[in-house]
Amino acid sequence: MENSDTRLDFSQFTTINVSIENQVAHLQLCRPGQLNSMIPEFWRELPEVVRKIDYHSAARVIVISTLGKHFSAGMDLSVFTQMAKDFSGEPARRAEKLRRSVLELQDSFNALEEIRIPVLIAAQGGVIGGAVDMICAADCRYCTQDAFFTIKETEIGMTADVGTLQRLPHLIPQGLVRELAYTGRNWSAAEALAQGFVNQVYEDQQTMLTAVMQIAQKIAANSPMAVAGCKEMINYSRDHNVDDSLKYMATWQSGMFQMPDIQEAMAAQQQKRAPLYAQLLDKTSMMSKK
Amino acid sequence: MENSDTRLDFSQFTTINVSIENQVAHLQLCRPGQLNSMIPEFWRELPEVVRKIDYHSAARVIVISTLGKHFSAGMDLSVFTQMAKDFSGEPARRAEKLRRSVLELQDSFNALEEIRIPVLIAAQGGVIGGAVDMICAADCRYCTQDAFFTIKETEIGMTADVGTLQRLPHLIPQGLVRELAYTGRNWSAAEALAQGFVNQVYEDQQTMLTAVMQIAQKIAANSPMAVAGCKEMINYSRDHNVDDSLKYMATWQSGMFQMPDIQEAMAAQQQKRAPLYAQLLDKTSMMSKK
Amino acid sequence: MENSDTRLDFSQFTTINVSIENQVAHLQLCRPGQLNSMIPEFWRELPEVVRKIDYHSAARVIVISTLGKHFSAGMDLSVFTQMAKDFSGEPARRAEKLRRSVLELQDSFNALEEIRIPVLIAAQGGVIGGAVDMICAADCRYCTQDAFFTIKETEIGMTADVGTLQRLPHLIPQGLVRELAYTGRNWSAAEALAQGFVNQVYEDQQTMLTAVMQIAQKIAANSPMAVAGCKEMINYSRDHNVDDSLKYMATWQSGMFQMPDIQEAMAAQQQKRAPLYAQLLDKTSMMSKK
Amino acid sequence: MENSDTRLDFSQFTTINVSIENQVAHLQLCRPGQLNSMIPEFWRELPEVVRKIDYHSAARVIVISTLGKHFSAGMDLSVFTQMAKDFSGEPARRAEKLRRSVLELQDSFNALEEIRIPVLIAAQGGVIGGAVDMICAADCRYCTQDAFFTIKETEIGMTADVGTLQRLPHLIPQGLVRELAYTGRNWSAAEALAQGFVNQVYEDQQTMLTAVMQIAQKIAANSPMAVAGCKEMINYSRDHNVDDSLKYMATWQSGMFQMPDIQEAMAAQQQKRAPLYAQLLDKTSMMSKK
Amino acid sequence: MENSDTRLDFSQFTTINVSIENQVAHLQLCRPGQLNSMIPEFWRELPEVVRKIDYHSAARVIVISTLGKHFSAGMDLSVFTQMAKDFSGEPARRAEKLRRSVLELQDSFNALEEIRIPVLIAAQGGVIGGAVDMICAADCRYCTQDAFFTIKETEIGMTADVGTLQRLPHLIPQGLVRELAYTGRNWSAAEALAQGFVNQVYEDQQTMLTAVMQIAQKIAANSPMAVAGCKEMINYSRDHNVDDSLKYMATWQSGMFQMPDIQEAMAAQQQKRAPLYAQLLDKTSMMSKK
Amino acid sequence: MENSDTRLDFSQFTTINVSIENQVAHLQLCRPGQLNSMIPEFWRELPEVVRKIDYHSAARVIVISTLGKHFSAGMDLSVFTQMAKDFSGEPARRAEKLRRSVLELQDSFNALEEIRIPVLIAAQGGVIGGAVDMICAADCRYCTQDAFFTIKETEIGMTADVGTLQRLPHLIPQGLVRELAYTGRNWSAAEALAQGFVNQVYEDQQTMLTAVMQIAQKIAANSPMAVAGCKEMINYSRDHNVDDSLKYMATWQSGMFQMPDIQEAMAAQQQKRAPLYAQLLDKTSMMSKK
Repeated sequence: MENSDTRLDFSQFTTINVSIENQVAHLQLCRPGQLNSMIPEFWRELPEVVRKIDYHSAARVIVISTLGKHFSAGMDLSVFTQMAKDFSGEPARRAEKLRRSVLELQDSFNALEEIRIPVLIAAQGGVIGGAVDMICAADCRYCTQDAFFTIKETEIGMTADVGTLQRLPHLIPQGLVRELAYTGRNWSAAEALAQGFVNQVYEDQQTMLTAVMQIAQKIAANSPMAVAGCKEMINYSRDHNVDDSLKYMATWQSGMFQMPDIQEAMAAQQQKRAPLYAQLLDKTSMMSKK
Repeated sequence: MENSDTRLDFSQFTTINVSIENQVAHLQLCRPGQLNSMIPEFWRELPEVVRKIDYHSAARVIVISTLGKHFSAGMDLSVFTQMAKDFSGEPARRAEKLRRSVLELQDSFNALEEIRIPVLIAAQGGVIGGAVDMICAADCRYCTQDAFFTIKETEIGMTADVGTLQRLPHLIPQGLVRELAYTGRNWSAAEALAQGFVNQVYEDQQTMLTAVMQIAQKIAANSPMAVAGCKEMINYSRDHNVDDSLKYMATWQSGMFQMPDIQEAMAAQQQKRAPLYAQLLDKTSMMSKK
Repeated sequence: MENSDTRLDFSQFTTINVSIENQVAHLQLCRPGQLNSMIPEFWRELPEVVRKIDYHSAARVIVISTLGKHFSAGMDLSVFTQMAKDFSGEPARRAEKLRRSVLELQDSFNALEEIRIPVLIAAQGGVIGGAVDMICAADCRYCTQDAFFTIKETEIGMTADVGTLQRLPHLIPQGLVRELAYTGRNWSAAEALAQGFVNQVYEDQQTMLTAVMQIAQKIAANSPMAVAGCKEMINYSRDHNVDDSLKYMATWQSGMFQMPDIQEAMAAQQQKRAPLYAQLLDKTSMMSKK
Repeated sequence: MENSDTRLDFSQFTTINVSIENQVAHLQLCRPGQLNSMIPEFWRELPEVVRKIDYHSAARVIVISTLGKHFSAGMDLSVFTQMAKDFSGEPARRAEKLRRSVLELQDSFNALEEIRIPVLIAAQGGVIGGAVDMICAADCRYCTQDAFFTIKETEIGMTADVGTLQRLPHLIPQGLVRELAYTGRNWSAAEALAQGFVNQVYEDQQTMLTAVMQIAQKIAANSPMAVAGCKEMINYSRDHNVDDSLKYMATWQSGMFQMPDIQEAMAAQQQKRAPLYAQLLDKTSMMSKK
Repeated sequence: MENSDTRLDFSQFTTINVSIENQVAHLQLCRPGQLNSMIPEFWRELPEVVRKIDYHSAARVIVISTLGKHFSAGMDLSVFTQMAKDFSGEPARRAEKLRRSVLELQDSFNALEEIRIPVLIAAQGGVIGGAVDMICAADCRYCTQDAFFTIKETEIGMTADVGTLQRLPHLIPQGLVRELAYTGRNWSAAEALAQGFVNQVYEDQQTMLTAVMQIAQKIAANSPMAVAGCKEMINYSRDHNVDDSLKYMATWQSGMFQMPDIQEAMAAQQQKRAPLYAQLLDKTSMMSKK
Repeated sequence: MENSDTRLDFSQFTTINVSIENQVAHLQLCRPGQLNSMIPEFWRELPEVVRKIDYHSAARVIVISTLGKHFSAGMDLSVFTQMAKDFSGEPARRAEKLRRSVLELQDSFNALEEIRIPVLIAAQGGVIGGAVDMICAADCRYCTQDAFFTIKETEIGMTADVGTLQRLPHLIPQGLVRELAYTGRNWSAAEALAQGFVNQVYEDQQTMLTAVMQIAQKIAANSPMAVAGCKEMINYSRDHNVDDSLKYMATWQSGMFQMPDIQEAMAAQQQKRAPLYAQLLDKTSMMSKK
């Protein structure tokens, strides 16, 4: 099974290092000197990277980590500066533009949720402001014991607006969400583990990365159709009632439940070998220009 | 108060033993030699049994346990064999039939949710694949310390399709749901307790059954109208927003809030005796054939 | 910054003591001799008090505690007596009136959710029946180690109808909600903490009140626009899907994201002082009579 | 059957004349000199009047008409003047206040929808801007042949915000709604009849009032429980799917389906007389101050 | 292509005559002497008949007409008599039973909506009360010029509860729905045609039946997979937003869009013959007893 | 007021001619020889064109017409050919790809709905298959008297899957939608007008284009903020309940209700001149590459 990742070039991205090995893509935010703050380039590059990987079926799982002592300081001041500049001109049109800007920022993180493959987060140190919004849009979160999380936006006089308040209430008990949002206080790794925000806490970053890569490998070894089906269904179930979700599942299976993967799984089990599943198809469109 | 359970005969069921005592029905999956795997007969019998109990108001609570070392191995291979046979003929009609088959299997477990009385699960050993789907549709889960849970479907190359991915995200933190679904790994009793999937973990099956029966008795001693109202409302609230749910509650009370049960409860308290509540009415229909 | 609380008089309320200091309103249920049972006056006064505070922007946070050994015994028997009296006359009209009565009682607690500012609960001893409904409608819950919670309604032969069954399933794992509702058993502070129903457990009431007031102060020190935005969004997200919630957030920001508070926060940080944010505007209406 | 309307005094209202006869309340907007423009007093009085009638079960139907050549010119300029004054101060708080003002104006018209009894509109001449929002919230619309309707807001540079764009798409074909909203053009009585916006067109106001009063009398002669049930259900069905609506209906009937009205209807039919139904109960609350 | 209808026996049904010819099933309500009033047997037989036809893929369209001068007088008095008998015993349990009875009656008409094939109504004379509920659940309605429709329930002191108020607001303008429901007045064939409630009005019953059978034949000549897909999607779109509906459509196509029917259609067109499509598969279940 | 349209070049598009004059963009499908059938290039170009106009605020209204005797023959056979080629390889992955292809086609028409400005359709002759899907996504429809509409997909053995079945039920009575979808019959301009599918029928194409351009000019003369607000709200109201829609409206106004446009409108009225409103701001993103 030839791996498609050899075809892709990610060298044009400046805020994220990308490496793909054994069907697992590792994305590293690579501006540790600036605490991996989220500059305009980052907001553009993140969705472009993950959608490119998904489009070309270049990997079956994405792991996101960062370089440096802290995971990310969240929104870079330069974005606010840019937004402040937008605060000129006729106020209604300005407001309409601001609304679109927020939708655009939100869309950067929606990409993590919308691609077909799982996204795992491995976080250390501070996970601040926009970084909390980002990891809430990922599938699974893991962290080191020195990690802490902060809905920083409240403290700087604004309401968090790129996903935390929309997704966190689906991830942890709401009484805690509210305390964290209203106070803007730090939230420790231990608390985050106890309430299920992160799945596991590790001693240090190296230990964490090794463990998270193992989890990623385990996922990548499964049928990518089965995993993509799980992601689609869990996303769907969060936003619909159980009846609708069951019906959607059955309708999905009408096309996606097929014997080849099951037969491969059973054959592999009998032959005591790892199963070999075909990749998801690329997302090339019949409309694409020749 | 004569008990209606004396009227009912459950001897025709081959995959489930049924006994009813003191308003509690105990269902035991009784194919330990085959790890209580879910054969076609089971999928048909389970909803028939629970709906029959509900129809005749034969009990006020149902407890489901199984015989043998493991709770259940999930879907029996023979079902896949049957499905594989369905993979012939014109593909669109085949797909439409497959969709209906999945809806039909889902309906077997929906029965646990739709009946008026609570269903408690007491699980030991392996709870595999379809068995996880089943217990997600029950009201409360209890297990022994050797129990473990697995979303096995992923490992055999398919997406779980009879309820796990639709109901589990409402039961435990979503980050954990995703890890369990994507990896297909075992999930221990201790983890399940910590995240609230099971309400209690017991040392062994006998201890568990004794304890769960006590919980069942406590429920059976309450007004069956009050308990049925709770079940209806909690089901409804999961699938609707709070405003709709409050309005539905008030509308329900317009008919179901009545004084007799409250007066009986108060009289019993004053007289230091257990209250005696009337049964729910049978579900005999005015349309039924004479 | 002159504090508006000096303008307001709360002396007419007989079931609740109100004091406002440093932007935090402290409401104390003050009928310890009757275990702070919920009499008709209480159901009327609670929403009136909290809406008055919100209307006049008289505080930025509300803390609710009670006097005496127990937080509250829930619904007072006199309400049932009143309801029993309503059980006369033509049954359909009676049922319609009962429905409205339930909606009216529910509305008393909805007020906690609908006002713009957070409501924190500090509970000790028994939190019984209607008191559970009430605290489920608050933003955050804190308790002493001797606290316990009971969905008492089941035990007295009725279905809880003023919010517990509608809001609790959004706060803690559903398997536990069901056990508590069906059995009516006591639920300890430790369990409530483990499952995230309360955010913290304290040794005794005095310790708790000191700690909760500190949390309240931290919230009151933040921009009230930012905090009100958080509350609106978390409420909204509970009841809508993520797409709708993100769009609502962006639309909200079109008007509510403005620079003054952010600039004040940044200036304060540079000048190493606490930021001074303007109050929310009063809710005086342009329709109000002169 | 004594009529409750004798108890009520509506003389304090300055923008609306109220008369109640034979269970039908006739509300007349009475500022023809100002084209019944909607001044602050009107926005406050309209919901107060209709809720008062509903609260005291003072009538079984409401008919709204106006004095003068035109039904209503919509929002009075003085409201904009007031709003313009609100455009001062910190912009985020100002925006939050504006949002509340719009919700408050909307609520005035929501009252027509929320009361238990039907509201019929009898319109002549121009029905402009806010007047379209208002009549969209009523149950049925009737007009004279000289009537015309205009979503005037577009023409004065703003988006209609008190209900037209939310309710009209449920009343007439959406392609027409869009043309009317985008152009702000006049819409004739004939078009309105053809597309079902009005139920009937009459030659002149007197003919219309006579006919509409006959319809109102026919409604008032029916069981007010039956009619209130219809209104509740049609409102509910507009906003929910059919499954939810059917379930809500069945739950409503558990309390509201009762034999007395049916028996009275049948007895009256046999005895060839008009049936005499009891009034809806007043909305007096058990919480009300003595 | 052997036709499955030859296998089926409908002679046990007493309120409905069934004949199947050329893939069209004709159901005739056959109690003209009693104005085809809806007796308990009818409520049981209707869903049984249509589900049987669907289950065995015995036809591709169902046409429902009735014998006699009037289509149907709606609910038979005997059902009310039966319900009145149910008005004994403890009132809460009685209310719960009443609620289930209404759900059961509603389900009889839901069957028309839930089966995979279209249901066409051909109505003459009076269509009264429950008959309106019934035809609202059908796909298309046709009538003679002497037909009239009445929401009779209001006039006999109750709220229509088996579907009219839930489905009619999706079929015709809401202002008209409300007038018809509140007054209970007759509604003529001409009005029904103008507002799109019926698709066509015919001079007399024979003309109507001939024309409706031609429409049915046209439908039966199309691919039953294509038609079933249309029905599923139109049902779904009524109850979901457009985004969800589009996604559901695409997911459905993943299994149901297949080339054989399209190729047959194209081949037939080239060969100037009628296409021959395979039947939908029977609904025999893998769980069925041998 | 400089017009932005001068900046834009549309010459690269091969299936659509674009001209912009007086704020109105006229799009003409320009393959009359092939009956404007929808080839892959068209599916790609249509969304690109309309999003480009919206992105650059190059016009305030879009009118879509076509060259030739017929509006459009719908999907080109070449697309089916391409799809048939996709019917190879492992069937589950193939099904997943097919699902994405349908979503992608749907998205082409969603663009008409998602842009901020109205889209008007002017149709003549045959409007077949995919062309019906397309015009259902537009804001308003106009046609000549020789126009006819056909849900052709049914006749060629497939279920229409790019929007007709999702949007048409919101545009015309459902009984008619079903007949048209199940039979695939032609639907005349007169019927379409009577049921509100088109807003107006014209004698011939030239008359139609003149009239539609006048409507477009009327829209373009209004405040583009007001019109965009109307479009956003009508879209939103179709997919949400009235309460949510009202709240969304009020929240939108918090940013978008501003005085400048209203003042310009009033000034223009006083000065008896046409108002001059500023354009919507371009959609240039702060994330865009420099």
